[in-house]
Amino acid sequence: MKSLEHYLSMIRPVPGGVAGEVQRRLDLQTKPQGSLGTLERLVRELAAAQWTSEPMCEKKVIFTMAADHGVAEEGVSAYPPSVTAQMVANFVRGGAAVNVLAKHAGCSVVVVDMGVAGDLNFTGYVDAKVARGTANFTKGPAMSREQAQTAIVTGIELALDHDFDLIGTGDMGIANTTPSTAVGSVLTGRDAAEIAGRGTGIDDAAFARKVEVVRRGIALNKPDPKDPLDVLAKVGGFEIGGIAGLVLAAAIKRKLAVVDGFISTAGAMIAAGLSGHARDYFIVAHQSAERGHHLLCGHLGKEPILDLGMRLGEGTGAALAIELIDAAVRLYYDMATFGQAGVDGKIG
Amino acid sequence: MKSLEHYLSMIRPVPGGVAGEVQRRLDLQTKPQGSLGTLERLVRELAAAQWTSEPMCEKKVIFTMAADHGVAEEGVSAYPPSVTAQMVANFVRGGAAVNVLAKHAGCSVVVVDMGVAGDLNFTGYVDAKVARGTANFTKGPAMSREQAQTAIVTGIELALDHDFDLIGTGDMGIANTTPSTAVGSVLTGRDAAEIAGRGTGIDDAAFARKVEVVRRGIALNKPDPKDPLDVLAKVGGFEIGGIAGLVLAAAIKRKLAVVDGFISTAGAMIAAGLSGHARDYFIVAHQSAERGHHLLCGHLGKEPILDLGMRLGEGTGAALAIELIDAAVRLYYDMATFGQAGVDGKIG
Repeated sequence: MKSLEHYLSMIRPVPGGVAGEVQRRLDLQTKPQGSLGTLERLVRELAAAQWTSEPMCEKKVIFTMAADHGVAEEGVSAYPPSVTAQMVANFVRGGAAVNVLAKHAGCSVVVVDMGVAGDLNFTGYVDAKVARGTANFTKGPAMSREQAQTAIVTGIELALDHDFDLIGTGDMGIANTTPSTAVGSVLTGRDAAEIAGRGTGIDDAAFARKVEVVRRGIALNKPDPKDPLDVLAKVGGFEIGGIAGLVLAAAIKRKLAVVDGFISTAGAMIAAGLSGHARDYFIVAHQSAERGHHLLCGHLGKEPILDLGMRLGEGTGAALAIELIDAAVRLYYDMATFGQAGVDGKIG
Repeated sequence: MKSLEHYLSMIRPVPGGVAGEVQRRLDLQTKPQGSLGTLERLVRELAAAQWTSEPMCEKKVIFTMAADHGVAEEGVSAYPPSVTAQMVANFVRGGAAVNVLAKHAGCSVVVVDMGVAGDLNFTGYVDAKVARGTANFTKGPAMSREQAQTAIVTGIELALDHDFDLIGTGDMGIANTTPSTAVGSVLTGRDAAEIAGRGTGIDDAAFARKVEVVRRGIALNKPDPKDPLDVLAKVGGFEIGGIAGLVLAAAIKRKLAVVDGFISTAGAMIAAGLSGHARDYFIVAHQSAERGHHLLCGHLGKEPILDLGMRLGEGTGAALAIELIDAAVRLYYDMATFGQAGVDGKIG
């Protein structure tokens, strides 16, 4: 395992000319200029991330990063922590939503144990367990600074080990909207009540508890918003760190990362905090139904691609966005130009 | 050709219980209830339209309806009328955006000449020409009442002749945002300036002309907002009538119509005006970037599925929405339930 600094030093800004070159080519195609809206943006961003006006979208992989959270014992989730490991088994057997949507989008799914509390008595996943769940951050830091680095570098090296044109992120971890809310709250400077949502569907009492738990964790641990590793260590999670690593790996490999919803965006905020240039290499797949997601996206300067009222995680939004990117790339390569089709251009 | 009344009499409301039955089944799957948002709605609506909780999404077809418009001579489009026929040729050869997106979504495309002005010296399209373009509605009605009926019934019978689980609508016709604006203005009671957009990309002068042209056409012809056929005849277009027919055919066949953007929504408004129950059988694929589209959707009580800043027509938005419906149906059939996967349910 190399150091985080080593990997961060490999990230370069995207070259300036690629997006414009792509747009000029799109403007020759048989459609009014710009009339494909977001689809045109997706081709530009994919091409810029790949440093080429001939972007590829063949090999697509979604990493679903799973971990448990000590803070679950505060009663902040509608589901018991046992569900994390059970859902990892469901991913491995192909029965979860992300499996179905990834298959539809022509993506493979890699399931990663970043820190599930229990033992997993089956195969078909990557064992990268940093620890058996984080500690309860209302009683101390969620993890050590070393563990935070390990989680991120694990995500980086895992992704670098795979061959892909496009990488999607995903998460599984009962209670993980709570650390994501904490990370988002610290990094945006907003109060937990503005960021927190209902997660998997908690009632009013649990929601009030969640806001209070996040405020308490931040007050106790005092994470430094200028130090993303400190934020991850004190109020984050292992899968959030792993996702930050995936986003950084995309930047290192000059590929595009498609960041899923609320938890993944918290991970992307850690990545963007560690490397400003990493921002050039990811998009946010969809607007989560989770309350403060738009604040996290706004902080990153990212407009989510889709808005379908989804709040499931796993990489489900990433899968849908990847399918859209694939369609956009097909338009880019397969549409006729005005010249080829013998279609007249604009008047005057 | 049978009468429009004959076909309208065949349309029934969707049965009440299907959507609830679908939702109960979705709620057994390994995800928090409702967490797939719009995807869950799409399965409910598809199933309701098909009158079964076992909806099909195998055979998908998009009809791209083409016609010319006399009002083009008023200088309301950025492109010359010659482009309508040239784009029909492009559709037939597979070089247009709708061809690429339909292929990506596993849809076939049927190209229909509903009223292109010129002769088409090639094959591969359906010749259903009602007339060689409409008349200029600033000088009199766009078409006769009989032609309006013919356009609609042509659309109905064309669709009834095809076998499909899901039908998408699309349009091609230089200047056709102008009659669509007029139809929308009359049926919503809003001024043309609230509905009109930039179409294929007109400048300020052409935009001012477009608004004035629509106002003038409505003032001259006095279409009766209570009589959708009168509205279509006086300020509509042949492809708009054909699209209204496609939407009615979906209702007759108990299938779901996926209505594309601005022009198709104008067609759906004619259909919904003719048959209140037809509203149960269509969704609006996407929020067009065309200014007043949200007003048309609001009038229909329809929330568009996607919002991707698109303004191309052809059926491009329908193709993307159909791909999403297909993904939603796969989730419905392929996800594991909590019981099958051995995943614990909610606490308490």
